[in-house]
Amino acid sequence: MKKINIGLFGFGCVGQGLYETLNNSKNFAGEIKKICIKNANKSRSLQEGLFTTQKEEILTDPSVDVIVELIDDAEAALEIVTSALKNGKSVVTANKKMVAENLEYLVQLQQQTGKAILYEGAVCGSIPIIRTLEEYFGHEPLQEVKGIFNGSTNYILTKVFEENLDYNDALRQAQDLGFAESDPTLDVKGFDAKYKLSILLTHAFGIYVKPDAIVNLGIDHLKNTDLEYAREKGFKVKLVAQARRIENKIYAFVAPQFVLNEDSLSTVENEFNAVTLKGDFCDEQLFIGKGAGSLPTGAAVLSDISALSYNYQYEYKKFYNLGQLPFSNQSLLKVYVSFSSPKDIELRDFDSIHDKYFSFDHSYVVGNICISRLLEEKWLNNPNNNVVLCENSHQRQLGNLCVKSLSAEIEDLKKGQVLLEKITV
Amino acid sequence: MKKINIGLFGFGCVGQGLYETLNNSKNFAGEIKKICIKNANKSRSLQEGLFTTQKEEILTDPSVDVIVELIDDAEAALEIVTSALKNGKSVVTANKKMVAENLEYLVQLQQQTGKAILYEGAVCGSIPIIRTLEEYFGHEPLQEVKGIFNGSTNYILTKVFEENLDYNDALRQAQDLGFAESDPTLDVKGFDAKYKLSILLTHAFGIYVKPDAIVNLGIDHLKNTDLEYAREKGFKVKLVAQARRIENKIYAFVAPQFVLNEDSLSTVENEFNAVTLKGDFCDEQLFIGKGAGSLPTGAAVLSDISALSYNYQYEYKKFYNLGQLPFSNQSLLKVYVSFSSPKDIELRDFDSIHDKYFSFDHSYVVGNICISRLLEEKWLNNPNNNVVLCENSHQRQLGNLCVKSLSAEIEDLKKGQVLLEKITV
Repeated sequence: MKKINIGLFGFGCVGQGLYETLNNSKNFAGEIKKICIKNANKSRSLQEGLFTTQKEEILTDPSVDVIVELIDDAEAALEIVTSALKNGKSVVTANKKMVAENLEYLVQLQQQTGKAILYEGAVCGSIPIIRTLEEYFGHEPLQEVKGIFNGSTNYILTKVFEENLDYNDALRQAQDLGFAESDPTLDVKGFDAKYKLSILLTHAFGIYVKPDAIVNLGIDHLKNTDLEYAREKGFKVKLVAQARRIENKIYAFVAPQFVLNEDSLSTVENEFNAVTLKGDFCDEQLFIGKGAGSLPTGAAVLSDISALSYNYQYEYKKFYNLGQLPFSNQSLLKVYVSFSSPKDIELRDFDSIHDKYFSFDHSYVVGNICISRLLEEKWLNNPNNNVVLCENSHQRQLGNLCVKSLSAEIEDLKKGQVLLEKITV
Repeated sequence: MKKINIGLFGFGCVGQGLYETLNNSKNFAGEIKKICIKNANKSRSLQEGLFTTQKEEILTDPSVDVIVELIDDAEAALEIVTSALKNGKSVVTANKKMVAENLEYLVQLQQQTGKAILYEGAVCGSIPIIRTLEEYFGHEPLQEVKGIFNGSTNYILTKVFEENLDYNDALRQAQDLGFAESDPTLDVKGFDAKYKLSILLTHAFGIYVKPDAIVNLGIDHLKNTDLEYAREKGFKVKLVAQARRIENKIYAFVAPQFVLNEDSLSTVENEFNAVTLKGDFCDEQLFIGKGAGSLPTGAAVLSDISALSYNYQYEYKKFYNLGQLPFSNQSLLKVYVSFSSPKDIELRDFDSIHDKYFSFDHSYVVGNICISRLLEEKWLNNPNNNVVLCENSHQRQLGNLCVKSLSAEIEDLKKGQVLLEKITV
């Protein structure tokens, strides 16, 4: 195995994890030649000579075989990756936002340049899910990909739910431990999980879906009353990303979800991630591993670098060999929506309503709503409203339009509102 | 991707599963050219022309690219695989016994012939554990590999433990469902799990260990009183295979084990298998999937055939790049041994004894015993005696000799025996 010279961009949590795993793995022939950093003044754990602020110094160095991109900024990352591939260097990246938003382009770029870009570290940290989907389930007709894709929100939910820790304290802990993205809203609003889901859609179902087209509801509106409700019913709340094939259409979304204690996902705590697969042949598969942290993610990046030493490339088998299945948001989900005032929610957006509950400190409705509504409607952004998915399975698939038949429900609920207003006067 | 012509040996449960997965996977370019079977008279689901009883007809056919070996007989399988590789054909096999007992030879044969032999289907059915160890954890310093490697015994234990089904009825069910080996003793005495463990030792730790050197205790001595004991203590009983690195020695064994209800392995039921990894970088990993059955195993075999289409070979990284760590059985395990008469067990074989219990219908001792004793001592084969491992972790590592300091214990126990004899008179 020839020695690999690595040009590294970024020396944060994951970059340092890579450095440590690389130096402690006895059977890997490679070394970091140069590290490009933004801030030259920050004090570093390694000798100065290893660092530079000039990206060209690395990108144009003919002795550098592999560019490892571990910076935060997605636009800057795309520039680096693009010129690396065009300069004939293979790339390893853990930047889920950059990959998710540009995957189709990056696949074309690999074809044009003949160079590889690997990004196992971008999805579920230490779980080898992309390579497993590519190499092992490349011929498996998958029905579902589901899981807990974000370590920091799972850490927060664990602390909040199990240890009754305050949400903000739990978030701070996650950040201190290096689990959270530098911008926590990417985690807590479900964007990070959505980027990963959109990447897996390509490897599991062979389709490209821009993150913007996928619903992501986060955990930042979660109230203690929602948690109490979950406990009463014997649920945990997890932030679940899922994609499903129904009658040859693909549906995908990220949302907090009530998960039964018996469910395998409910045993996944702290920064651990989980991916479940359902396939026609393999039946059910479950993968659990650390989804965040310096060493687990560093090790994932190292295994990608190692794969480049035998010229490994993703084949995107399903994208090339299967007809692209259509992606759709025209399907109903059963959701629980808690609110502080009925005026804050748009009941017309529901297809049907199953339960209603009003009280001084906790009011909610449970009903069916079309995924596309969750994507469009502004009232969902109101921090007084919190949405939690009630079940894994779609209610039923619709055509291109979400049927409405709510008049009775609304009438019914109006009484409730009146009642509530009376009480609250 | 060039079309692959497959020569298949054996058309039992897995062979038929392969045929079905192959015909139902839309994006695989390959077909079964010929199937070699033992019994020409058995009626088959496919047209006669596809079958032959002459192995040379397949092994010498220049148009056959890949030999897929799915027969029961390990010796016959080794012959087929050997001449296939020597004839310049790559091989996929699911024969764990053949691979485990000849792995070092098979690796040499691959070097000599330049042809590959892949055997993912031989270990834990649909769980992609070998390729994951090879490709993804090839640089990970692993501390432990552990799991439920045998689907039929796990199915039996589930039915016996959860549904109070009679052991023999549960075994028959497992056989009817195609989970069990043709010779059930390979399953229920832990040989099948041991073969898989010995294969994983090579891919996880880079060492070869002949199955004969590894302890395998089965579930066929398990009594209802043992199960009641487990329930009382909040345990399940699982047949667990495990390998562990302690101070750069490797220890491995297969034994029934009391598993806490909170343990991730206790949620693995029926024919599902599980593999847990512990590593210095990746921390803990858990993989769960169907470990037996026609389609899951057939799909595993298909994914190996597919890997051959891009000339994939196992690299045996850790074997070639790391110094071979010594394998040892000189370590203590805490075991529960139930017996019907104290005369049936050899207390001198214990290093120390923690608990003793005597009654008319259930007597047992709990103590520390050296792994090597479990390998050698004949009294363990007495069906009246049943051994269950009490904890995952080794008690402590010993030198080359198991220390004994039992006199007091034995004296103490003799009183117990006297007492018991009095009672039983």
